[in-house]
Amino acid sequence: MRARTERGESSRQMILERALDLSSCEGLEGLTIGRLAQDLDMSKSGLFAHFGSKEALQIATVEAAARKFREEVLGSVADTEPGLRRLVAGLEAWISHIEESDYTGGCFFVAAATEFDDRPGPVRDRIAELSGSWLEWIEKEAHLSRRLGQLEPGADTKQLVFELHAFVQEANWARQLLGKKEAFSRSRLAVRERLSRAATTEGSRILTGSKRRKVVKQPTR
Amino acid sequence: MRARTERGESSRQMILERALDLSSCEGLEGLTIGRLAQDLDMSKSGLFAHFGSKEALQIATVEAAARKFREEVLGSVADTEPGLRRLVAGLEAWISHIEESDYTGGCFFVAAATEFDDRPGPVRDRIAELSGSWLEWIEKEAHLSRRLGQLEPGADTKQLVFELHAFVQEANWARQLLGKKEAFSRSRLAVRERLSRAATTEGSRILTGSKRRKVVKQPTR
Repeated sequence: MRARTERGESSRQMILERALDLSSCEGLEGLTIGRLAQDLDMSKSGLFAHFGSKEALQIATVEAAARKFREEVLGSVADTEPGLRRLVAGLEAWISHIEESDYTGGCFFVAAATEFDDRPGPVRDRIAELSGSWLEWIEKEAHLSRRLGQLEPGADTKQLVFELHAFVQEANWARQLLGKKEAFSRSRLAVRERLSRAATTEGSRILTGSKRRKVVKQPTR
Repeated sequence: MRARTERGESSRQMILERALDLSSCEGLEGLTIGRLAQDLDMSKSGLFAHFGSKEALQIATVEAAARKFREEVLGSVADTEPGLRRLVAGLEAWISHIEESDYTGGCFFVAAATEFDDRPGPVRDRIAELSGSWLEWIEKEAHLSRRLGQLEPGADTKQLVFELHAFVQEANWARQLLGKKEAFSRSRLAVRERLSRAATTEGSRILTGSKRRKVVKQPTR
């Protein structure tokens, strides 16, 4: 019984992997059970047994993207000291997550958000919720950085989060539409400069240190 | 004959206006002659006479959005002194253009770019070309501002353009997905702060002046 469940689970994962790629390219709205079945050379009824409806398939795909994001971005900074060190590491992990994305359509969430932002319903709500909680994560670390004396006491963290988030989304846009790969280094530079501007002396030391450490670490990875 | 041509032109404009709204909401790919005919309660053959193909309709819609952008954004700063004064006015006109947009789906170009960035063809090419020329406009004014001694000689204008453009796109995203209307004031603040940081004393004077003048002007509009 367990073998069968495991097989079922791994086949579900394989299906969702393909669903993620298809939808980041052709849009989540175009992701129907029929389209996916055709692509995977599976029967519609087989896929139907996994998901039950187009909407459930879309939501499962959103959840699969969120899981991937959590593993690659949040997972990579789980052991990093909270505050400015974790904030900058998290933002840089996010940039790398998009830069190294296998999906033809670039950042899944940017594409899905633009597509669903004016289509009320559970899919849109879940995308908004997940995007909102990532903004909250950034804000929480910015707050903590300020409390720890790493950012200036007067730093406007809401404004800071708006700008930091903008830099990363812009890189995705510039790469996807204009093929500008240098957008990722622009994005990294913008994030660090913006943080430096709000940082205290202690914060600046962390920012310089985290950069130096990264360079030393890279070859051993 | 002229009357008939004018009538044809105004009916084409009316159709494109509706096409713009529909596609900014449901996506440009979903904009078919059949879907638009149904929406306008017109015959498919009548619409076909206007455009000839789905792709031609999509391109005509992109051109209509570009015309609107040129009128509302570039038109409003045509008489503004070139350089930093025009740069900040152009960016603020762009923010207002998105903020006051009638389209349900927010900024037409952001939505269309995300949808078509991985669909090669003439529609994608035209969207990329138009988005690229807006970036070039921003860069040209930034260059000129530097040459006029309004921005620091060492200001990295490519990096500046990347960040300024990011702030405006972010406002559209935050409003559309998260309903954050304050995103537009965050965007305006970010633009001015970023420009101030690169400005010379002469540039700072212009930025402060252009702000004061705007406040005086508003009630007479």
